[in-house]
Amino acid sequence: FPSRLPDVGTTIFTVMSALAVEHGAVNLGQGFPDFSCDAALTGAVTQAMQAGHNQYPPMAGVHALREVVSRKTEALYGRHYDVDAEVTITAGATQAILTAILACVHPGDEVIVLDPCYDSYLPSIALAGGVAVHVPLTPASFRPDVGKIAAAITPRTRLLIVNTPHNPSASVWTAEDMRALQEVLAPTRVLLLSDEVYEHMVYDGGQHQSSARFPGLAERAFVVSSFGKTLHVTGWKVGSVCAPAALTAEFRKVHQFNVFSVNTPMQHGIAAYMADPASYDGLSAFYQAKRDLFREGLAGSRLKLLPSSGSFFQCVDISAVSDLPDAEFCQWLTREIGVAAIPLSAFYADGFDQHVVRFCYAKRDETLREALARLRKL
Amino acid sequence: FPSRLPDVGTTIFTVMSALAVEHGAVNLGQGFPDFSCDAALTGAVTQAMQAGHNQYPPMAGVHALREVVSRKTEALYGRHYDVDAEVTITAGATQAILTAILACVHPGDEVIVLDPCYDSYLPSIALAGGVAVHVPLTPASFRPDVGKIAAAITPRTRLLIVNTPHNPSASVWTAEDMRALQEVLAPTRVLLLSDEVYEHMVYDGGQHQSSARFPGLAERAFVVSSFGKTLHVTGWKVGSVCAPAALTAEFRKVHQFNVFSVNTPMQHGIAAYMADPASYDGLSAFYQAKRDLFREGLAGSRLKLLPSSGSFFQCVDISAVSDLPDAEFCQWLTREIGVAAIPLSAFYADGFDQHVVRFCYAKRDETLREALARLRKL
Ligand SMILES: CSCCC(=O)C(=O)O
Ligand SMILES: CSCCC(=O)C(=O)O
Repeated sequence: FPSRLPDVGTTIFTVMSALAVEHGAVNLGQGFPDFSCDAALTGAVTQAMQAGHNQYPPMAGVHALREVVSRKTEALYGRHYDVDAEVTITAGATQAILTAILACVHPGDEVIVLDPCYDSYLPSIALAGGVAVHVPLTPASFRPDVGKIAAAITPRTRLLIVNTPHNPSASVWTAEDMRALQEVLAPTRVLLLSDEVYEHMVYDGGQHQSSARFPGLAERAFVVSSFGKTLHVTGWKVGSVCAPAALTAEFRKVHQFNVFSVNTPMQHGIAAYMADPASYDGLSAFYQAKRDLFREGLAGSRLKLLPSSGSFFQCVDISAVSDLPDAEFCQWLTREIGVAAIPLSAFYADGFDQHVVRFCYAKRDETLREALARLRKL
Repeated sequence: FPSRLPDVGTTIFTVMSALAVEHGAVNLGQGFPDFSCDAALTGAVTQAMQAGHNQYPPMAGVHALREVVSRKTEALYGRHYDVDAEVTITAGATQAILTAILACVHPGDEVIVLDPCYDSYLPSIALAGGVAVHVPLTPASFRPDVGKIAAAITPRTRLLIVNTPHNPSASVWTAEDMRALQEVLAPTRVLLLSDEVYEHMVYDGGQHQSSARFPGLAERAFVVSSFGKTLHVTGWKVGSVCAPAALTAEFRKVHQFNVFSVNTPMQHGIAAYMADPASYDGLSAFYQAKRDLFREGLAGSRLKLLPSSGSFFQCVDISAVSDLPDAEFCQWLTREIGVAAIPLSAFYADGFDQHVVRFCYAKRDETLREALARLRKL
């Protein structure tokens, strides 16, 4: 039978993780920590299971966890989301993204994506029957060009997808960027999908600029986050979506027939653990130290460091080291040098190659040191 | 913005569970156990978390859990599914169903559903842009009429969805039914979505007739099951799909951009626990005793018992008790008698009312006795 996604293969993350295992490489490819979460967090999940929280939770999510999300968003970004009508717990951020797209994109609708972008956006748009409209982030800086976004809007534009802190480039949107976007969208009915899974990882004193902060954006936005990234448990697959009631109602129509609901004991455990804001407060400082360790280790090398202002990724320009296309370079680096990375071209629909690769520094310091020792051979 | 699912409200299960809570009713509506799972199962999940299994699992599922599924399917149904290429772990059966439909149904394709049917099928077909073609199960017996299915097949038919043991009616397909279906499908390219989440709950010495048993069905089938139903943990949201490699490849293309992967510690815990077939072997006997307790309790009443040959549901004809439409009867029963049930009309797109309601007997014996005491007031 004909494929619904003829251009899709296995995700680059799966491919590179498998290659890393095969060659015993230090895996700085797929974005996940190689260290443990807090034992108090797994303890809270065990308690939830023992307390009998093992049957269907409410479709929209365990109430206590929705309260945590609502309180946190209000405290950090100054917007109140109603616990009952405006917060939904999802089986990770990827499920939130597909669900939001299926909930609002009709066949033929245009969806603006900013390249490079996370690899689930385009297949999700295709499954909804939407048409992706590509707008590049500014080359080298990977910062948004709001004028270019404005120029891409047509009467058929249904949705714009933004992502800050940005995967893969590690750039972040400024308050001016957000205000400019707010102005551009004001006269339109364009909806916004705001992927903010790295919201708690912003460096050098910067502040995360959530769409929730800007009323003209929040009123049209699905704001997506990820407990997996925030709590060092990427395998738990629990995320959240905040959106105005009308958007949430449409989101839940699809959500209830996609996963129906999300793992009950994990939700209870996370809610109990995150009642204390210390559970996420220190995250920027924690990851900034890892970023600095990694950057210092590469400072004298011929890998040219790009800025890493947020997320847990570090991009480097490989031009001085190799003429290989970035995808081939990553294969070679995994095999011969023993460090896995992700080629930036994998985040472009057309495979645009800027000789840039992405490393993930969400790793133990020993792991980063071992990777650095290997990379210094370059 | 216009809805993608304009006809969809909140699922009947959520509505009736909320009403049950509001009125302190015994909840025999939504299908979930009110008793605990085996402590060894939660213990195995705790061990997995403590062993550090908290980051992304393989996209297709933890290998050990796919092995359990493959071994079990071979032992019970005599078909070998390749662990690497033909078994995928999902975030519950509902996610498996939407994912399979999105993976194979193109806009305009016809999908045959047998009414009454589980309420996620039709919205899932709508999201894929498919056209649902309705074929009724035989009234009163709720058994399949394979001749009617054959008559509904056209050159545009892409997929047929079957479900045995059947929710909501508790009927089961016989080997003759399956063979007849196999014959009807043989000259076609129609794919099969086989919802078998109650596979381990078949009564009176009957055998579950999995699509995996019948080569002419298995070669075109996505066979869906649910660990939540089998292990009394409906809130864990872990299921599985077995399908030939070509179908699995298309399934995973969508799966990886829907949820990407499924909760890691739950997968490890379930795999460890289910290494022992005793974990599911006794399920039919366990639930048959509950079915019998519930049926005996209603034997003298004016609620007319329909057969319950599988699943954990018992349907009753309410004609002798009430003239109300079944949906209104369920509201009244919850409020006035203090027992929640699900109206069968909720499983028909056109709300067809046969004066039948569904009770779930996956409950502690005390719970069933309390419900029976209340129902005897009728
Ligand atoms: C879902 S696997 C990919 C993890 C991730 O977000 C990344 O590496 O970019
Ligand atoms: C996903 S909630 C519905 C549970 C169920 O399968 C049923 O009650 O029919």
